[in-house]
Amino acid sequence: MTGRLIGVGVGPGAPDLLTLRAARLIEDARVLAYPTLAGSPSFARSIAAAHVREGAEEIAIDIPMTPAREPAQAAYDAGAARIATRLEQGQDVVCLCEGDPMFYGSFMYLQARLAPRFATEVVPGVTSVAAAAALARLPLGAREGRIAVLPATLPDEALRAGFQAHETVALLKLGRHFPRVRALLEALGLTDRSTYVARATLAEELVLPLAQAPAEAPYFSLLLVSKDSDPWL
Amino acid sequence: MTGRLIGVGVGPGAPDLLTLRAARLIEDARVLAYPTLAGSPSFARSIAAAHVREGAEEIAIDIPMTPAREPAQAAYDAGAARIATRLEQGQDVVCLCEGDPMFYGSFMYLQARLAPRFATEVVPGVTSVAAAAALARLPLGAREGRIAVLPATLPDEALRAGFQAHETVALLKLGRHFPRVRALLEALGLTDRSTYVARATLAEELVLPLAQAPAEAPYFSLLLVSKDSDPWL
Repeated sequence: MTGRLIGVGVGPGAPDLLTLRAARLIEDARVLAYPTLAGSPSFARSIAAAHVREGAEEIAIDIPMTPAREPAQAAYDAGAARIATRLEQGQDVVCLCEGDPMFYGSFMYLQARLAPRFATEVVPGVTSVAAAAALARLPLGAREGRIAVLPATLPDEALRAGFQAHETVALLKLGRHFPRVRALLEALGLTDRSTYVARATLAEELVLPLAQAPAEAPYFSLLLVSKDSDPWL
Repeated sequence: MTGRLIGVGVGPGAPDLLTLRAARLIEDARVLAYPTLAGSPSFARSIAAAHVREGAEEIAIDIPMTPAREPAQAAYDAGAARIATRLEQGQDVVCLCEGDPMFYGSFMYLQARLAPRFATEVVPGVTSVAAAAALARLPLGAREGRIAVLPATLPDEALRAGFQAHETVALLKLGRHFPRVRALLEALGLTDRSTYVARATLAEELVLPLAQAPAEAPYFSLLLVSKDSDPWL
């Protein structure tokens, strides 16, 4: 019997936004895996820290932050190989994943490499988008409302079409695209419909009207753009 | 001091997909509120059942299922008034909400009525979309991927545009629109890219390729349409 690969969403950041299932699986895990970004401490590991069993084996998969995709792919290859040795020995491996594993999560890259050979399981988690909406008290969708989740890396034309076709747009991956996206929202008259949320549910969380947002957006930030002024009545 | 109105997402259905925060808030709550649909038992209440304090007051807000919106609005008005009496007495009221409160959740209607007068707080939850993707092991978004969440009640033209502009579309509220949506997906050559998920995370959950889905879709069902054949590598 081989072990199971279990992708566990640990939520947006606050440790108590783990699900009961995630907490139990992490507490039982003898082998954990998680990504680290370019040598930084793992955010997913820090969210789950209170539940990690003493003496658990921890497989940190360091993902280089390069524009080229090959180095990251090689890192996932190597990480998957390390996980595979434990699965082959019949041990379950719990992979921690920020937010939700299927929502822009690193787990998908491990699943793609390991699911052909091993049983997999995925535990959904609270996304950063849900956390941001909760913090801002902004409905994402109601009744016939349409929602889009778009990376800010898309060209202006695609973003413009997205704003036109949906009552709510969540813009992720702001980074160096933030000034351009901001100018686009201003040109479309959507600045006062846009809310900036950074590090939702962490102590340093920030919720601001876009007009008051800082010039630089950190990695864990997003914009919620709501066309409806009062969509929930 | 008035009490706080706390909207708590209880997740998609499995009781252990509550967050730790939701469980704690429900365990501490002396007053709970939740919607019931046309006299049926409350799904949100059933998900949270194990955590409800003995002797807690429970405010069930029965929402009539009518095409006209006024009867539902009147029900939310009446429910909000009952909640307000407790908030005025300084008691916190925990409102249970299936999935996530800001994602097509009933809580938004209570918030709209009560937030002008009382402090509110929202605890995000795991959405049905995340649960369905986890069950189907289907990535919702990766890298530059675009995601749309669309009600199946939209006209064909809007749905077609949605499929064209996004790598992944989650179609909610299938109901009586299911046959039409199915025909549209077939005409667009997307049937074999579509996964049907019903009652995700409950004992009777169902995950099927669209071609094998039943003719009628229950209330808690959705379709995931993924254009990428293998978007996660």
